[in-house]
Amino acid sequence: MSDPVRIAVTGAAGQIGYALLFRIASGAMLGNDQDIELKLLEISPAMDALRGVVMEVEDCAFPLVKKVITTDQPEVAFEGVDIAMLVGSRPRGPGMERNDLLAANGAIFTAQGKALNDQAAKHVKVLVVGNPANTNCLIAQHNAPDLDPANFTAMTKLDHNRAVAQLSHKVQAAVGDIEGLAIWGNHSSTMFPDLLGATINSKPALDAVSQAWYEEDYIPSIQQRGAAIIQARGSSSAASAANAAVEHVREWVSGSERVTSMGVFSKGEYDTTDGLIFSYPVTVSNGVHKVVENRELNAFAQAKIKATEAELIEERDTVAHLL
Amino acid sequence: MSDPVRIAVTGAAGQIGYALLFRIASGAMLGNDQDIELKLLEISPAMDALRGVVMEVEDCAFPLVKKVITTDQPEVAFEGVDIAMLVGSRPRGPGMERNDLLAANGAIFTAQGKALNDQAAKHVKVLVVGNPANTNCLIAQHNAPDLDPANFTAMTKLDHNRAVAQLSHKVQAAVGDIEGLAIWGNHSSTMFPDLLGATINSKPALDAVSQAWYEEDYIPSIQQRGAAIIQARGSSSAASAANAAVEHVREWVSGSERVTSMGVFSKGEYDTTDGLIFSYPVTVSNGVHKVVENRELNAFAQAKIKATEAELIEERDTVAHLL
Repeated sequence: MSDPVRIAVTGAAGQIGYALLFRIASGAMLGNDQDIELKLLEISPAMDALRGVVMEVEDCAFPLVKKVITTDQPEVAFEGVDIAMLVGSRPRGPGMERNDLLAANGAIFTAQGKALNDQAAKHVKVLVVGNPANTNCLIAQHNAPDLDPANFTAMTKLDHNRAVAQLSHKVQAAVGDIEGLAIWGNHSSTMFPDLLGATINSKPALDAVSQAWYEEDYIPSIQQRGAAIIQARGSSSAASAANAAVEHVREWVSGSERVTSMGVFSKGEYDTTDGLIFSYPVTVSNGVHKVVENRELNAFAQAKIKATEAELIEERDTVAHLL
Repeated sequence: MSDPVRIAVTGAAGQIGYALLFRIASGAMLGNDQDIELKLLEISPAMDALRGVVMEVEDCAFPLVKKVITTDQPEVAFEGVDIAMLVGSRPRGPGMERNDLLAANGAIFTAQGKALNDQAAKHVKVLVVGNPANTNCLIAQHNAPDLDPANFTAMTKLDHNRAVAQLSHKVQAAVGDIEGLAIWGNHSSTMFPDLLGATINSKPALDAVSQAWYEEDYIPSIQQRGAAIIQARGSSSAASAANAAVEHVREWVSGSERVTSMGVFSKGEYDTTDGLIFSYPVTVSNGVHKVVENRELNAFAQAKIKATEAELIEERDTVAHLL
């Protein structure tokens, strides 16, 4: 048994946090042989609720959990952490414009970026789940100049899983038979679910479906799935988001030869603007994510990627004073 | 890969159900090589919410999940099931007396017992989580005369885990160093957390703590933990209950040489009334639970066991017309 891995989770008493903690604590993220310490951050008004959540974690008697601390101070939460899962963010309230939302979250992720810079392990792996995830991640990354930008990622794994599941359902193939699918760009309604590089049982996915279905049904349905869940459940995705976060970190730590999707610090791959947090097809080896090279992109795909890139540039410019 | 295991979950859109489904679907209960089918039961007014939950299960693209069906008919939910997790029950409403509660749940578990009898696989493993769990289980069992009474169990694993965790915290031992601890009787405030047969690193647990702490702090704190969680969280235990349900079934299916706690159909072991669903220390081998024999019980323990037995007899007599 190696030393405990220190894992910070923000927004730990929220709906995604509640779905996430027990999966992490049970070993689903880092395996059944890896001890862990949980460092849970919440806003001050949620500390009582967080205490209740921690009582339930205790009530599971998880053998891997060596320590749980709770705090409303990012500097405390991120001290020495190996993994930071930034789940908490300010949700969009009634009448709130996108710019208000970016500003409210800007303050949170500026503070958390600085605290990560000063307190986290230099190798810390940061996953931003809280929306707008890519730009929140960009703000945190910019406020952590001593950390490698590659340490900062935003979650598009939920979109990736949705895209795999819906293709699987459409063609009646097992999810394991689908490879190479990827989400490009922003975790928002402009994201581009790319089937051009995807295969089903090693045959091109786009041979199995019509271009009309792909463009008119599939892509919009992935882009708007979050809203569909809210309509059906009466609240936003929690357990499926938590599951995606577990898988994102698991693949980042344990490796993934299969193509997955992550929002990563762009170095300008595929002619996108560098310095954005941009979702690409990636593989992971030895704890390092790597954008898949030489994917074929036709004019349709390029236009979709440009559209989601444009949105990310606009978001970046809105928070330029925080960068 | 063997044939899918068919798992029914009732109350699948409730708080425990929501915490439970994703852990089952991810392989946490039956392992990463066991395909599963989920058969989800809800009351008619919750079918829309259940649809939202199923959308989220789909959005995880779990490779093990081969099929998910939803229904408000127990006969459909239990058709051919190998495992039935009866999570849904009528919670106690304002002004509701215990007898009202037993009556309301009596109707549910009578119908579900009959449906299990008629529809489930003969080897079905039934776990009742919904409260009052022991007596709900008794009603279901009595209404399924064609099934082996040993197939019916009620959950005291959450109490068991709470008892392990609190002892572990008190003596600063790893949870894995604690063995032999058990919960006796009813899943209610009369339950008896028994340390007499427990060891910490193979030494008697009761040598490590005072009898006063055991009787005056520890036992009441386990008995009243559910209420403490409600007070802290503002809602009842969900993720920790789901975790206990996962572990109960996992140990039942995969075996447990370590002593655990299960409410099982009593054959009168330890001079308790036979035919109750009574929590005992058990071990599990080849899918069969077995009450641990020859546990030492002093006068204190015997009195506690009699008290929880008396409550179970009273509950049984209240629902005698359903048996």
